[in-house]
Formats: sequence, C-alpha cells, structure tokens
Amino acid sequence: MSKVSIFEVGARDGLQNEKAVNTQDKVTLINELASSGVRRIEAASFVSPKWVPQMADSSTVMDQIERNPSVKYSGLTPNLRGLEAAIAANVDEVAIFGSASEAFSQKNINCSIEESISRFKPVMELAKEHNLPVRGYVSCVLGCPYEGEIAVSEVVRVTELLNDLGCYEVSLGDTIGVGTPAKAKAMLEAVMQSVPVEKLALHFHDTYGQALANIATCLDTGIKTFDSSVAGLGGCPYAKGASGNLATEDLIYMLHGLGLDTGINLEKLAHSGDKICKALGRNNGSKVALTLLKQ
Amino acid sequence: MSKVSIFEVGARDGLQNEKAVNTQDKVTLINELASSGVRRIEAASFVSPKWVPQMADSSTVMDQIERNPSVKYSGLTPNLRGLEAAIAANVDEVAIFGSASEAFSQKNINCSIEESISRFKPVMELAKEHNLPVRGYVSCVLGCPYEGEIAVSEVVRVTELLNDLGCYEVSLGDTIGVGTPAKAKAMLEAVMQSVPVEKLALHFHDTYGQALANIATCLDTGIKTFDSSVAGLGGCPYAKGASGNLATEDLIYMLHGLGLDTGINLEKLAHSGDKICKALGRNNGSKVALTLLKQ
Repeated sequence: MSKVSIFEVGARDGLQNEKAVNTQDKVTLINELASSGVRRIEAASFVSPKWVPQMADSSTVMDQIERNPSVKYSGLTPNLRGLEAAIAANVDEVAIFGSASEAFSQKNINCSIEESISRFKPVMELAKEHNLPVRGYVSCVLGCPYEGEIAVSEVVRVTELLNDLGCYEVSLGDTIGVGTPAKAKAMLEAVMQSVPVEKLALHFHDTYGQALANIATCLDTGIKTFDSSVAGLGGCPYAKGASGNLATEDLIYMLHGLGLDTGINLEKLAHSGDKICKALGRNNGSKVALTLLKQ
Repeated sequence: MSKVSIFEVGARDGLQNEKAVNTQDKVTLINELASSGVRRIEAASFVSPKWVPQMADSSTVMDQIERNPSVKYSGLTPNLRGLEAAIAANVDEVAIFGSASEAFSQKNINCSIEESISRFKPVMELAKEHNLPVRGYVSCVLGCPYEGEIAVSEVVRVTELLNDLGCYEVSLGDTIGVGTPAKAKAMLEAVMQSVPVEKLALHFHDTYGQALANIATCLDTGIKTFDSSVAGLGGCPYAKGASGNLATEDLIYMLHGLGLDTGINLEKLAHSGDKICKALGRNNGSKVALTLLKQ
C-alpha cells in the first residue's frame, strides 16, 4: 500500500478559530491524536496572545503533553520572538506563513508579501542554528477574501520564495475554500514545475464543500501530503457559521478507500474528535464521525 | 459550455426522510426550485401512506403547484396502484426502484430482486400506454447496510434489467454513501459496458462526505446526470443524525467551477433550500448555502 501523510492542524488552525477551550482539553486532544497514529501534529502557535488569545497557553500545552517519540509536534512562528518561544517550548518543527495575495498579506500579517519574506529570513537562520525544520504555508492559493481571483503565477512565485528560503515543505492553502477540482489541479501542476511535488502539501478548506473533490482530483499528480483538522475544527472567519478546515476523518475515509495508507486508526480518531467537539459545545464537522459514532 | 443535468430529489427523497412538513411548504419549495432553473423535479411519491406518511399529500401537492412547462415533474411509483395515482395526479414521468442488494430488496420492498422486476412489468406497460417515461433507480450500488459489499456484476445485472424493461434512464444509487472515488468510477465503467452512459445517472449520498469526490472522479467517463437534494434534505435512515443526500448547491458549485452548465441560479436555489430548512427546523446541509447566506 502506498503511504500518504496527514498533517493534523486541528489543535492549532482548528482551535484558534473556535472559542477558547481549557489547556487540559487541548493536551488530551493532542495525546489522543498521537495515540490514534497521527504522526504530524500542529500543536501550538507562538503568535501574540493579543491577536490569538485561544493559543496563549501554547507553551503550557507543549509542556504538558506526553511526547510520543514517533510524532513531530509543530508550532507556528510568525517572527523571531515567536521562534524563541517555540524553541523554549521544545517543538520538533516550526512553520511560517506567507500569502499569495497582497491584500491578504497586508490584512493578516500587516506587511507586503516581499516584507513578509524579509521578515522570515532571520527566523529561518535561527531555526537552522537549532536544527529545526521549517514548514511554509501559502494562503489564498485559489482565491482571496479581499482580492477574489489570485493569479497562479503569484502562487508559484510565493511557493518558490518559501522553498528558496529553506522550507522543507510548502503547504498550499485554499484559505477560503473557493477552489474547484480543475482549478485546484491546474494550480498544483503549475507549482510543481518549480518545486517538486514531494515538497508540497495541500491545505484545502471545505467552506464550499469542495475540499475532498479537489484532493481526489489532485491525487494523480503524485501529491502525498494533506493538511486537515480532526472533526473539521475551525470555522471560516470570513463567513461565520460556515465550514473551514476539511475534517481529517472524511479525508482518511477517502484515502483508505483508495487503498492509501495513513497509519491512522479512523475510529479512534473519530472518538477523539467528538470529545473535543463536546468540550467546545459545537457540532461535529466530520460526516464520517457523525455516521460511525451514531451507528 | 457543456451542459449537465441535475435531477432534484429534495422534495421527495429528501422530505420523505424528514419529519412531515405541511403541503404549502412543499408546494412553495417545488415552485421555487422550478423558478431557480431546475428542470427535473422529483415532486411526489405514490407509495402507501402507511409506509411513508410524509408523502401522503402527493396528489394535493401535484394539484397545487404551478406547472412550469419547461419542467418535468416526477413521481415515485412502486406498483400499479401507485402508477394509477401518479397518472391521476398528472405527473410528467414516473420512477421505479430496484436494488443491487438482495437483502435490501427484501427489507425495502419485501420481495427478491427477481420478483421486483416482475412486478415492474405491468407498471411499465401501463406507463407506456399513457406515454409516461419511466426512470429506474438501483439502490446499494456501492454497498448495502445489510450485506456490506455488493458485487459490481450485480449492479450491472440489475441496471441491465431496468434498461431492458424500458426505463429511459437508470440512476445508480450509493444509498448509504459508503463509496470512494476509485470504486465509484470502476462501478460506473462496468455498468457503461452494458448501458450507454447517456442513459445513466449518479445518485450518490454524502453519508461519509464522499459524494462530490466520487462525482468529480466519475466526470471523465462522460456521465452528465446527477441526482441531488436541495440543502441536503433527507438524512440517512441507517444512521440517525448522519447526512444523506448530496446537497444540490454544493454539486452545482463544483459543476459551475468546472465550466459545466446546469442552467440553475445557485443563489436563488440556496435561498429556497434555506427556507425549507427553517420550516423543518433543521440545519442547512449545504456548505455552499451556509457560506453564501452568511456572507
């Protein structure tokens, strides 16, 4: 069976778009993800708590989880200060985030795309000194909430910049989930001309219900890494009440059905996702979980 | 732009799996579907009200709707008595339903697959006398709630039987939504060896969130007709609280994104779907609708 890799973002990208949960619930979630077989977990964010109060306890979370030696725990680091906190918290890898949209870059991280790349340079250097792998995110690869359509050439350019900076992998984010299959595949194929597919990941949101269809259509490019969020944690900040992240359970169901090996125990994962949904008082965003747990 | 056809099942397959709504709400829904550009509407079911009380008012519904001359209104007819009621109600076409699963046939329509085909014969004859086109449904094409896996050869056989009976189109139903893309496509390709793709439709449920991915993967076979349900009306009777029908809005969003023409005004449709959800007191099951209506 061919292996594929799930990069689980529920505990960070997911929870930062939910109301705050207590530290113990996060720790339990992360420990359970690891014991379900998830091997790459975005567990923390070292962004100013002024901007993302949900993530203010990231250092405590990292301190309290049981570190599974087979798992890579990742932390988001927007700048040097964040990286220093991530190093102190002993993460296994860090992530930086750029955008393919000039307007989104300005609104999200208060600088132009060029400036963001300059700011990442000292982060990359310090990370290298500490032997910390760095993952890059590119947002708005299939559309922007402010600009609308984004030229594929811009996606290619920003992905190349992050790759050239030394990111070991670049995750292509359809931040607002507007993509459809042919566009998603065309974008990925364009990027693959510059950055090998082994260094790319798809981070597709399900705001319009398209994420799985887009991934299914992209599979024959050879792409093997997918970001998703257990129970679909994380709404869409641009349309309150709408869906955000693709649910990991639904993705795994498809991948396993296609004969691909994720190494994850789907049923165990579904139970963990349901537990955190109950802690949040929200509906489970995974159709697979709703079905498995109600049968 | 290449044209595709949506066969809208929300007012029947959808509403028969919801709690009862009043006749006026159904009439409004069907009229609004037509004015959104939907051209094929399953509007009624002439099954015994003892089994499906939600559909007991089908003749009244057919009587009260504004008949849009561009729209084909369909009614489900399990037997001669149902067909007579459908003829009296002046439907444009009728539908019969068989199964690729012996166990499902027994539990759902109380007879074997062979017996169901025999029962359909007089229905087909009377329909022909009245120049009524007959659509066939095959359930459980990708799995059965009682038997589990279903052999593709059984799907092929039952589809052929319905085609040979004279159905103008056969709709292939993944009744419990268990299929994944490669299996869905392999099943369709096998059926296409016997029955031309122009006479086939896909009726995929979204119980495990796979319906759109399955359709996306099947598109290059040339399949052009898809059954779906506005707002995802209709749950899954085999897992209470789980999803059932694929939401028409999410399907249309994908098809339009692929440059295919459905002739339907998506925004108008989303509003109609939301209205019936409010009447039912249920959450809207379309991610596209949730996003469009909350922006």
